[in-house]
Amino acid sequence: MRTCSVHFKPSAKNVEVEKGTSLMDAAQKAGVFLDAPCGGRGQCGKCRVKVIEGEHRYKPSRLIDRQEEESGIRLACLTTVEGDMTVELVQTVGVGDIIVEDITSDKTKKLRVEKAIQVLKDSGIKLQNSFRSIEIKIKEPTLDDNIPDFERIARELNPLMESKKPDCSVEVLRKMPRIIREAGFDVNLVLREDEKNYEILDIAANKEKKIYGLCVDIGTTTVAACLVDLYTGEIEASANSGNLQMQYGADVISRIIHSTKPGGLEKLRDAIVQGNVNKLIERMMEKKDCRREDIVSSVFAGNTTMTHLFLGVPAENIRLEPYIPAFRNSPVFRAKDIALDINPNAPVYILPNVASYVGGDITSGVLAAGFWNSDEITLFMDLGTNGELVLGNRDWMVTCACSAGPAFEGGDISCGMRAAPGAIDGVRIDEKTFIPNVNVIGNTKPSGICGSGIIDLIAGMFFSGIIDGKGKIKQFSKSCRIRFDNTAGCREYLLVPAKDTAHGRDIVINEIDIDNFLRAKGAVYSGIKTLLNGVGLGMNDIQKVIIAGGIGQNLDIENSVRIGLLPDIDRSRFEFIGNSSLTGAYLCLISDEARHKARQIADLMTYIELSADPAYMEEFVSACFLPHTDMNLFPSVRYVYK
Amino acid sequence: MRTCSVHFKPSAKNVEVEKGTSLMDAAQKAGVFLDAPCGGRGQCGKCRVKVIEGEHRYKPSRLIDRQEEESGIRLACLTTVEGDMTVELVQTVGVGDIIVEDITSDKTKKLRVEKAIQVLKDSGIKLQNSFRSIEIKIKEPTLDDNIPDFERIARELNPLMESKKPDCSVEVLRKMPRIIREAGFDVNLVLREDEKNYEILDIAANKEKKIYGLCVDIGTTTVAACLVDLYTGEIEASANSGNLQMQYGADVISRIIHSTKPGGLEKLRDAIVQGNVNKLIERMMEKKDCRREDIVSSVFAGNTTMTHLFLGVPAENIRLEPYIPAFRNSPVFRAKDIALDINPNAPVYILPNVASYVGGDITSGVLAAGFWNSDEITLFMDLGTNGELVLGNRDWMVTCACSAGPAFEGGDISCGMRAAPGAIDGVRIDEKTFIPNVNVIGNTKPSGICGSGIIDLIAGMFFSGIIDGKGKIKQFSKSCRIRFDNTAGCREYLLVPAKDTAHGRDIVINEIDIDNFLRAKGAVYSGIKTLLNGVGLGMNDIQKVIIAGGIGQNLDIENSVRIGLLPDIDRSRFEFIGNSSLTGAYLCLISDEARHKARQIADLMTYIELSADPAYMEEFVSACFLPHTDMNLFPSVRYVYK
Repeated sequence: MRTCSVHFKPSAKNVEVEKGTSLMDAAQKAGVFLDAPCGGRGQCGKCRVKVIEGEHRYKPSRLIDRQEEESGIRLACLTTVEGDMTVELVQTVGVGDIIVEDITSDKTKKLRVEKAIQVLKDSGIKLQNSFRSIEIKIKEPTLDDNIPDFERIARELNPLMESKKPDCSVEVLRKMPRIIREAGFDVNLVLREDEKNYEILDIAANKEKKIYGLCVDIGTTTVAACLVDLYTGEIEASANSGNLQMQYGADVISRIIHSTKPGGLEKLRDAIVQGNVNKLIERMMEKKDCRREDIVSSVFAGNTTMTHLFLGVPAENIRLEPYIPAFRNSPVFRAKDIALDINPNAPVYILPNVASYVGGDITSGVLAAGFWNSDEITLFMDLGTNGELVLGNRDWMVTCACSAGPAFEGGDISCGMRAAPGAIDGVRIDEKTFIPNVNVIGNTKPSGICGSGIIDLIAGMFFSGIIDGKGKIKQFSKSCRIRFDNTAGCREYLLVPAKDTAHGRDIVINEIDIDNFLRAKGAVYSGIKTLLNGVGLGMNDIQKVIIAGGIGQNLDIENSVRIGLLPDIDRSRFEFIGNSSLTGAYLCLISDEARHKARQIADLMTYIELSADPAYMEEFVSACFLPHTDMNLFPSVRYVYK
Repeated sequence: MRTCSVHFKPSAKNVEVEKGTSLMDAAQKAGVFLDAPCGGRGQCGKCRVKVIEGEHRYKPSRLIDRQEEESGIRLACLTTVEGDMTVELVQTVGVGDIIVEDITSDKTKKLRVEKAIQVLKDSGIKLQNSFRSIEIKIKEPTLDDNIPDFERIARELNPLMESKKPDCSVEVLRKMPRIIREAGFDVNLVLREDEKNYEILDIAANKEKKIYGLCVDIGTTTVAACLVDLYTGEIEASANSGNLQMQYGADVISRIIHSTKPGGLEKLRDAIVQGNVNKLIERMMEKKDCRREDIVSSVFAGNTTMTHLFLGVPAENIRLEPYIPAFRNSPVFRAKDIALDINPNAPVYILPNVASYVGGDITSGVLAAGFWNSDEITLFMDLGTNGELVLGNRDWMVTCACSAGPAFEGGDISCGMRAAPGAIDGVRIDEKTFIPNVNVIGNTKPSGICGSGIIDLIAGMFFSGIIDGKGKIKQFSKSCRIRFDNTAGCREYLLVPAKDTAHGRDIVINEIDIDNFLRAKGAVYSGIKTLLNGVGLGMNDIQKVIIAGGIGQNLDIENSVRIGLLPDIDRSRFEFIGNSSLTGAYLCLISDEARHKARQIADLMTYIELSADPAYMEEFVSACFLPHTDMNLFPSVRYVYK
């Protein structure tokens, strides 16, 4: 088989591939990141590249116009390599540009963490973990006192450990004799205790030494991590990035499909473990001058698919009826078992999943949100990729997953993008001129629109009368901003003209986009309604709404209620909680009892499979209107609506 | 640096080495086995090779005569490669030729195992282990019964496991979803239980399935293994070989010295794990058509140095005063931690060491010998490389290691060799003509003399008056068999002339050899005496002598007493027990309680450091005579002695 050489600019990476390989596979093989929300099916148009030279074949796409086509623009997933090629990357947003919330970046965020800690304390949960670093002076051996090194250390620890038995890995045993003697019998030990045993996780020459833990939120789109001092609980460093699995698809379904291809599961695992987590660890270690061996514990929170892929466990049954994950409570593995670059014997704790589409990130988020210790009936919403809901209080919880897809992260929208520099995250439309006023993230020209911007835009179009309750652009709307879109075959609204954008193409929203978004928000609202119906409650019984997920911070509550995404209740009941999945993982890292509590929370939740609920489809259809077919549910909107 | 190519005949192995490398290092690098009892110090003369062609340098050795030197015979350890070479291996005994006792090879040996089992039973020890293989039919999931695979299996096991919690490795979790479905929810699980948890060690499609355990005796010279049905306790296969570490020295001290060289520890570990144990496993699996995954437990017995090197734990402190091992009770590792080719999660149990020179092989041997359940004062002797002694009964035990070196395995003797085809294992000397009558192992010409042969030979020389009590060849001995040895500079006795030997060289024993052997036997006897003195007992208080180790079977008790190796007590009190280290490991494999008992036995033993006993040196000097300076200790010998 002939191989062809593909050169990628500007990263200057080269790869040899077989003739006939898709450019997308070539990029993945070369380690060149290409965002591909639709998973390489030619549907989203996001994997644009520019062919500079070289023989290739491609399928034309309606997402690329003639002029672009002539200039060499192709969709990487629809292009095959037929000879040596040079290809230029033209995606304006790289994996490192995605904005990920840092739970320690400002005072508000720090307060949230403190508040979560306070709830633990109030409920009597001890903020203790089973790790400690101790200094011991070992009695030097003599002919008369000749017990071996391992037992000698155990003898010194006896007063502390009582009848607990010592344990250690073969790696620690291998370095023990030399380190003890090099250190002149004055050593530092890192210990982990359980009820009956204790384990020596590391041994080193004695010096003041911190021990660290790692907590990570593995989101479908973003990965966020913190390095934590296990003694003080201080967050010492944090780092985050886009989930590199994005090159295999934006949502969990695309990823699962990719995982069933030959070698696919390993590629996905490699992307998250090596590409994301180990890199984040490296970055955080550099900041703190900490050794790998000093990171002795780890906690991970992610949705069910993410935790499966992270461990390399087949996830395909999550997608196939009757939707069965491989596990709910993962056994506790060691870092070395899954190639994590921390102390090889550090335990790896994974927040328990609830069901196939309600994962450990939700368990973690609920732990952080604290309403498990409250009487108030609370609605917890995670608006990330998909959308998960939990309703309840200290006594009961029901939960469901809404098929919202990645709409809140700009997915399924032609000009949608994730929150990153160049994303329009806020829009106001002049009700007379229909001219929009946009807010762009970063000091740059816009290249697309993200979730919070789409909500504002749709709310603005609706209240200025551009679209009707079904999301259709009204015939009588007369404005240069309204036009008929040639490629999608429907009307569109021009948000930013080509001359003002980063990539020189118009930023628009068309009726298909709006329809996709209405289905997403309808899925969320009907999910809330179904949960409430299930427990015999109404919207006004919700005493608190806690909104988690990256979208939260920039979300306009008023607009979200007006379009019928959020329930029309007293606005003071809404609260943003940020990346609660990471906060919950942090709590489980610093406190063993918090980890047990998380497990109790997961057990407490009753999962409602919406697709199995006969009344759900009717609720969904009613919720795909602006704001809803039943206007009684939206009294304040009725009042505003002209 | 110039590299040279070395070709080894007849194995046809090639290796590239740097100019100046020793031929011995080249052979090790090429994977060519070269026995080197002295560890490559030019002292034993066993690493002979024949240089066919090629530039090289060598140091002359008194162990190679002029004629041999002219024909190209060299000691590999004293020869350096200076150009491309072709070298022929001329050692007559390969690593595979060494005779290792198989504990199941005949009725006598099987009876010993049965007897050891009977002692366990008599003492109330249950013959149960914590492994089981069970078949379960898992309820197929539905939309209403959608709990995950791992929890689904746990639910089926609940009635068996009560409140124990499930655990498994990431490897098992990774294959679980697919195996369950491929098998139509009808699977076989291998489980290991402890008090609070159970672990799924393997999952496979349901069919009748045996689970196996592995027990191994890692001797300094030989390695012996059995594959055991964990349900029935039947030994299904056995295999053994010479310890490949022999190429780095015959005794533990040479090996420890080698282990401190760069990469040395890894080479020694590799030799025993990959070269020996994994190969034995493979051979046994072939016999039984068993899969790697089906071997789910393992027990290893070896001396302290061997267990350290097997785990890759530095052993150098065993050799340096105050002689401190790294561990006594090894933590329980998993097969994957030490690269054992069985089920990666199979526990690896290592019999506890007692001290630096009394290891787990002795603990194991004592367990098998059964006197821990007896009132009789018993002397347990392991005559292998070195020689370890245990004296005691159910209430107390004292133990020591004698610096006997490898004399009982033919080491330190110029024509000595291990028990293998071509070894003289029995000698009778005509007291008038001084002409010997020899017995040779295998249908072959002799090439050397092994331990039991040396005992017979020295006894014969003593009682026929060739040597005196100091082991010196008497001036008045007139025989063509007695001559002056040119190379060693002392008298020698011709056992087999060159024309009748396998290699065309005389087989002789000289005064230095005899002296070496007397020091070895003296070390053992004075060890026994010191143990007895320590507890205030005399030779006649020993109610039973149990002789373990490879030498046992062919040892002539009468001759051994006559030369003063064994105590002169009623011959009916002596008993041979064979490879008790392997038998003990077998017991620990089939019975958890036996493993706990082994630990109690190790704890019960009080180690006596002979070199620290002020009276020992005097005892030793007295015991280096034939049979002893105190003839009152040998009443029966006095009677025979003319």
